[in-house]
Amino acid sequence: MKLLSYLRDGRVRSAVLFEDNYVVDLNDNCYAMLIDKGEDEQFAERFCNAVLPPDMLGVLQSGDEGLRLINDVIDWVRSHRDIAVVRRASDVRWKAPLTRANMLRDFLAFRGHVEASSRRMGIKVPEEWFKVPTYYKGDPAIFYGHMEDVPWPSYAKTLDFELEVAAITYKKGKDVSKDRAYDLVIGYTIFNDFSVRELEAVELRLLLGPGKSKDFANGLGPWIVTRDELPDIKGLRVYARINGEIWCDTKIEDMQWDFGDMISYVSMSEYVRPGDVFGSGTVSGCTGLDIGRSLRPGDTVELYVERIGTLINRVVR
Amino acid sequence: MKLLSYLRDGRVRSAVLFEDNYVVDLNDNCYAMLIDKGEDEQFAERFCNAVLPPDMLGVLQSGDEGLRLINDVIDWVRSHRDIAVVRRASDVRWKAPLTRANMLRDFLAFRGHVEASSRRMGIKVPEEWFKVPTYYKGDPAIFYGHMEDVPWPSYAKTLDFELEVAAITYKKGKDVSKDRAYDLVIGYTIFNDFSVRELEAVELRLLLGPGKSKDFANGLGPWIVTRDELPDIKGLRVYARINGEIWCDTKIEDMQWDFGDMISYVSMSEYVRPGDVFGSGTVSGCTGLDIGRSLRPGDTVELYVERIGTLINRVVR
Repeated sequence: MKLLSYLRDGRVRSAVLFEDNYVVDLNDNCYAMLIDKGEDEQFAERFCNAVLPPDMLGVLQSGDEGLRLINDVIDWVRSHRDIAVVRRASDVRWKAPLTRANMLRDFLAFRGHVEASSRRMGIKVPEEWFKVPTYYKGDPAIFYGHMEDVPWPSYAKTLDFELEVAAITYKKGKDVSKDRAYDLVIGYTIFNDFSVRELEAVELRLLLGPGKSKDFANGLGPWIVTRDELPDIKGLRVYARINGEIWCDTKIEDMQWDFGDMISYVSMSEYVRPGDVFGSGTVSGCTGLDIGRSLRPGDTVELYVERIGTLINRVVR
Repeated sequence: MKLLSYLRDGRVRSAVLFEDNYVVDLNDNCYAMLIDKGEDEQFAERFCNAVLPPDMLGVLQSGDEGLRLINDVIDWVRSHRDIAVVRRASDVRWKAPLTRANMLRDFLAFRGHVEASSRRMGIKVPEEWFKVPTYYKGDPAIFYGHMEDVPWPSYAKTLDFELEVAAITYKKGKDVSKDRAYDLVIGYTIFNDFSVRELEAVELRLLLGPGKSKDFANGLGPWIVTRDELPDIKGLRVYARINGEIWCDTKIEDMQWDFGDMISYVSMSEYVRPGDVFGSGTVSGCTGLDIGRSLRPGDTVELYVERIGTLINRVVR
């Protein structure tokens, strides 16, 4: 299943991709299904708004109750094409699958990327990196979806992208073991951790981690592929193309920490909640920084991850 | 005005402190007021749930519309003591005024604290610190209120407190000037940035800023004092007492950056939103780290800020 958000009449709506080419609005079809089954109109309105609201964060907060209802809705749409609310995917404007996450934590899991960063700083990979899956926290309210323009921040001289995979949660958990951690995950999507490098360098020297160098934009999308379709991301091919030119083409294979490690670590004495986004960190080599290049205004950034899809954003001044 | 949250029948409720000794539930008294004025019951229910919901984040998101309604409610309670819903403050269990913030950003604004930290690390204060108001982002869903026990994290050897003042926003703004930044602020409260120092040292070496060393708990409270009562925090006396013993007693006076600077800086090419918490950073000398001490399980931490009040938390294993 592919969970997504799209724009209808100026407002964001949660949906699933249906038969590859159609968008099924969750809230509308939940309502249509309940009416078709003879339920009271006001109950249908309240129930669907509670369990499958238009915002995807709300849908994820419904946990397994929400997932069951989504599956019921899809089954009902399949057998009621005449009365279901179905749109052509080619007709809709995409939004990030989550336009508002609960939390955004971005890790640093790829060995090749950490080695490249350390080399540039003239240091060895810090031994602490092998001990804990370290992360910074981003702005969870500033996600750009597939085909959305990303504004060039007023204070940025240079802009860079980072190709990452993100795991998204739909359940709450505390002190969760590494094995049980995946039970909290609804699925995976592509994450572009846009960065202002000259400001990041300043912020890193101040030891509080990235702030304005990363908080202005996160790319996310095109959709969340659920775990039943994509149980694991290891070995997947990824590439980044800028204005059609390949800047990296590699595989997901040198992760020091997997999402089970990250989620289990964060959950120590602290709740992981539905709608938390866990970024993998830059796939080794898949950022301008690792290959000595950076973006220019107007550039189109295309991030591909096998079995998830392609996330395209243009950066505009 | 003092905005607070309290616990009723196991659920968090937004309220104001009334005549120093009483708690006025916002949602209940909004409803009682509208019914008293002859409004339809279902409209009253919907309207009060929309503008003055039980969660304070929702109240702050109502902006000036919410503030006007709160003032109407207080006026109505004053003249309708017989039918208003009023509780003795001494009878209620406090929660953090915001149990869920939109964002938590914590700065490093006090010169004396930065000088002490730099001295300990054997370095000069980084010149970048004078150029940008730097911050890290905390967990906005883990606030402990006045008199709530803070659990000692399973992975912590030592625990420390930090006495800070926080500004809370109730309006949305982007590219806001320093002067206009205060228009977004509803008021101020006390913030205790609990920290696991041995893990913080590891995380700082990894350059992504504080993670598990701070994300397990934030103390906040006892209430938000609105700006009409407290226009500015400069010069206020503050002290920290641990188990009744004074560990610091000083004034707010060496801020390199004020809240106007912080909010204006964050708002560059990025939205500041209602319910954002801006921590000042540790008031110089007001943390165990600056004076070479740390907390033990069972310790009671009492943070006082003149004209705001006292925030008391016990740390329990």
